[in-house]
Amino acid sequence: MKSYSIAEIAGFEVAAVKAGIKPSGKYDLGLIVADKAYPAAATFTTNKVVGPAVTVSREHVRNGRIRAVFVNAGNANTCTGKQGRRDVIRICKYLAKRINALPEEILVCSTGIIGKRLPMPNILAGIDNALEQLSDSADSAELFSRAILTTDKKIKTACREFNISGNRVRLSGTCKGSGMIAPNMATMLGFITTDINISPAMLRHALKKAVAASFNKVSIDSHTSTSDTAIIMSSCLAGNERITTKEADYAVFADNLQQLCDSLSRQMAADGEGAHHLITIRLRGAVTARDARKALRAVVDSPLVRCAFNGADPNWGRIVSALGYSGAKINPEKISCKIAGIRVFSQGRPVSFDAKLLNRKMKTQSYQILINIGDGDFEDFCYTCDLSREYVTINADYHT
Amino acid sequence: MKSYSIAEIAGFEVAAVKAGIKPSGKYDLGLIVADKAYPAAATFTTNKVVGPAVTVSREHVRNGRIRAVFVNAGNANTCTGKQGRRDVIRICKYLAKRINALPEEILVCSTGIIGKRLPMPNILAGIDNALEQLSDSADSAELFSRAILTTDKKIKTACREFNISGNRVRLSGTCKGSGMIAPNMATMLGFITTDINISPAMLRHALKKAVAASFNKVSIDSHTSTSDTAIIMSSCLAGNERITTKEADYAVFADNLQQLCDSLSRQMAADGEGAHHLITIRLRGAVTARDARKALRAVVDSPLVRCAFNGADPNWGRIVSALGYSGAKINPEKISCKIAGIRVFSQGRPVSFDAKLLNRKMKTQSYQILINIGDGDFEDFCYTCDLSREYVTINADYHT
Repeated sequence: MKSYSIAEIAGFEVAAVKAGIKPSGKYDLGLIVADKAYPAAATFTTNKVVGPAVTVSREHVRNGRIRAVFVNAGNANTCTGKQGRRDVIRICKYLAKRINALPEEILVCSTGIIGKRLPMPNILAGIDNALEQLSDSADSAELFSRAILTTDKKIKTACREFNISGNRVRLSGTCKGSGMIAPNMATMLGFITTDINISPAMLRHALKKAVAASFNKVSIDSHTSTSDTAIIMSSCLAGNERITTKEADYAVFADNLQQLCDSLSRQMAADGEGAHHLITIRLRGAVTARDARKALRAVVDSPLVRCAFNGADPNWGRIVSALGYSGAKINPEKISCKIAGIRVFSQGRPVSFDAKLLNRKMKTQSYQILINIGDGDFEDFCYTCDLSREYVTINADYHT
Repeated sequence: MKSYSIAEIAGFEVAAVKAGIKPSGKYDLGLIVADKAYPAAATFTTNKVVGPAVTVSREHVRNGRIRAVFVNAGNANTCTGKQGRRDVIRICKYLAKRINALPEEILVCSTGIIGKRLPMPNILAGIDNALEQLSDSADSAELFSRAILTTDKKIKTACREFNISGNRVRLSGTCKGSGMIAPNMATMLGFITTDINISPAMLRHALKKAVAASFNKVSIDSHTSTSDTAIIMSSCLAGNERITTKEADYAVFADNLQQLCDSLSRQMAADGEGAHHLITIRLRGAVTARDARKALRAVVDSPLVRCAFNGADPNWGRIVSALGYSGAKINPEKISCKIAGIRVFSQGRPVSFDAKLLNRKMKTQSYQILINIGDGDFEDFCYTCDLSREYVTINADYHT
């Protein structure tokens, strides 16, 4: 299948420039501009401390129609008080005027250092510059994917193509997310464009569901950021009959959107700060959905567990003890655990296994862990990575 | 003040031997034996997955009188099923017979690797050997303090001496605790001897209170172990009138016990796996005690925050964002933060500070962080350490 970037979805143009916000001088400012105000939806961080980009975007997206998205990396514009909010509104007004839109039709995302005012002259000049570069090319989209990165090593993109009653529909997304990632709403910056003909309400439903089952399942370091935002915009140009209810066409779209977000989420976990391995943890046998979440969270939040992943050590003892203090209802005599397809613990007891073979499997780029905690019917999963010396180096040497 | 080891408290003898349980061949088995069954109390891990040493000791300490404590490091005897429990009972019976006690008067503590059966021949031979070495000397106590260590670098001891109505009373303690330490009951192995004349009920009260305000305030890696136990035994030989109620004499004792446990707790945090700094975090302004605990926990559980400590980076942004997702009721406009005596954040806004001076202060062995989250009356504190590359090395290279 040919792959499509967010710029190649009919109705959208994309640009990115070097605005001098990142000290490294790399690409740091991006725009997604639609032909006109299209249906849009967004999810945001659940952190109570949020940047004004989040509060303003939350207000603007309520109307359900958005014309453009502004994003910058290198400065999160958080804890910057009233001036920070004024700066965001100024960005909305400035960009709106240039593209003949309303300020309320602009969304703003900022990621990076906390507590510093945005360099407004750079930002406004950057907007002007980006507007001149707007294009529907894959190259622009790649620069955009690069501009939103912070400590990420790789750009992250995904696309889906499917039919709805004979009409070809396209979905494309890109995201960034490396540190400060916890399973608690959005957890990163994500941008998705599509051409499906859909109402804002249905778009919102589908995004919320997809995010819950994808971005919210990623945990790098159990630290929820103050800027997390996932945005979807639809140009409605695919030719399908407008989706306004949760019927068959909606289900096809929602399923594809979830798979797109799932792909982005795995890329995010694989590129977690200092990560060597992408690890999917699946947990079964919980008595309630909440117990499943609590048990999973205790395992994935444990630095000891994630250090063991780093050392390719099948340390089921740390997993089992994390389940024990998770607060979830567990049956210690029923706990079982498989790592990379090899059973290491069964019915509350360790079992012998081929340690050399398992060590080899745990040295591969990606593997699964299956955990059973009892007889319950509930299950959950998450994506994570190992905790490495490089993670500490990246985050100890970060400079306030 | 002269310092007293746990062996130098009247009524107790102590020994430690190399029983071949630790692969390193170091001291790994210790005994505390009292003249006769004395009042004793203990607190245990809240983990639902516990070793049989914990379940058996929980049963035995209920009687309130204990004759001896057996401890081994190098093997936690957890997830070893019914055989594991039989082994613990065998230790109790074997030791009881040798010292003319009842098996129910013995407490057992095991720490180390999970999922392996105790090497019983080594353990029983070790007990015989240790019984021959029993003495009330500081040297024996030092070997005991060494025998209980796992990844700790230093032995940890503390003592207190005080008067109760003209009678000199002595308290002495030692503990181990390096990884798998979370603020959730006991969190390590701790052994305290005293000669105060006190009822088992009052001893239990005082221990519970002291542990809540000391050992339960230490968080190294938010991972609660399956073996945590703190034990206090009193020979009642100090000559004071027996303490049976919560009156003045009790308060003096309880206060001294808490200070002893506080000293051990700080030593534990300072010697956390890979630790370079002992950091005390004090949080104020919470609306409830629960909010104070939640807010503090989010800060201290964040690997990002603890990596910043490692890099001597006054990263208030990570602290403030952790408060934001803690679930505690906070007032973002009232958040303030001082690091090592220097204000870095005030009333929801960053303030300028002397970065070079603060960096120097954050490179010292020990400093405080003060956080205010609003107008509430509740406060809490905890002891922690930085998250270092060495922590990852220790725990990635641990070998299951």
